[in-house]
Amino acid sequence: MGRRETVELTNMCMVYDHQGNILVQERLDPDWPGVTFPGGHIEKGEPFTKAVIREVREETGLTIQAPKLCGLKQFFDDDGTRYIVLLYKTDRFSGELCSSEEGKVFWVKRSELGQYQLPVGFDQMIRVFEDDGIGEQYVHLVDDEVVRELL
Amino acid sequence: MGRRETVELTNMCMVYDHQGNILVQERLDPDWPGVTFPGGHIEKGEPFTKAVIREVREETGLTIQAPKLCGLKQFFDDDGTRYIVLLYKTDRFSGELCSSEEGKVFWVKRSELGQYQLPVGFDQMIRVFEDDGIGEQYVHLVDDEVVRELL
Repeated sequence: MGRRETVELTNMCMVYDHQGNILVQERLDPDWPGVTFPGGHIEKGEPFTKAVIREVREETGLTIQAPKLCGLKQFFDDDGTRYIVLLYKTDRFSGELCSSEEGKVFWVKRSELGQYQLPVGFDQMIRVFEDDGIGEQYVHLVDDEVVRELL
Repeated sequence: MGRRETVELTNMCMVYDHQGNILVQERLDPDWPGVTFPGGHIEKGEPFTKAVIREVREETGLTIQAPKLCGLKQFFDDDGTRYIVLLYKTDRFSGELCSSEEGKVFWVKRSELGQYQLPVGFDQMIRVFEDDGIGEQYVHLVDDEVVRELL
């Protein structure tokens, strides 16, 4: 078709309950510290839905059901490669919380998330999870400046 | 990152109203006849949301607002390249209906869609648009047989 491109496909999931808690992961990577949501790379040929279930299980010990796609994030590597994050959320999960080598996972009050160190743009991105009218965080360069748009 | 892959990125949009009508396109491609929803390729570097607004405008004349991502479709070319379709829907649009070279566009009753020639798997895929509990149509080969799964 001649319309192919190279991409990197990942996912991220906001697991939440109805007492105002969300599940976060404190990353052990010293180059990229702070609190984020579990997620990771989608394997070649893997169903998207199964990929996010697998990643959450690997990183949190929890088995999620019915992850709901709530939007997308995209940004670009220096060579123009598109990096895509499929953003899911779910309030359905079972199992025992268990951290992985990727980082410690724990529940925080959504209202207290701002007290934690967050990746750049995370506070904006979380609106894609929480606002039905927003479907995308689009991160791109304008005059060598990183611009993050909600669309 | 070493987790890159080659993909083809496209979108499709179900435009609907609250009188039970949906907008379809009757394709002029003799190799792939039948009725489908407007959509097309996402350009390199293009925001996903803007891409679906552009495609719907090009193919229908209508300007849509607030397209809502409701799921994904993926299948694989013979060489394993992943073909991704971002599935959107919206009931917000303005402008005059105008067909393009891609095919004639017109409103049909949702309840009468089955009377039209539809692409293989379309009747299953439409459930991703209409059922909040389904997030993906995953089309793959199992023992050389095409299998379509809803996930």
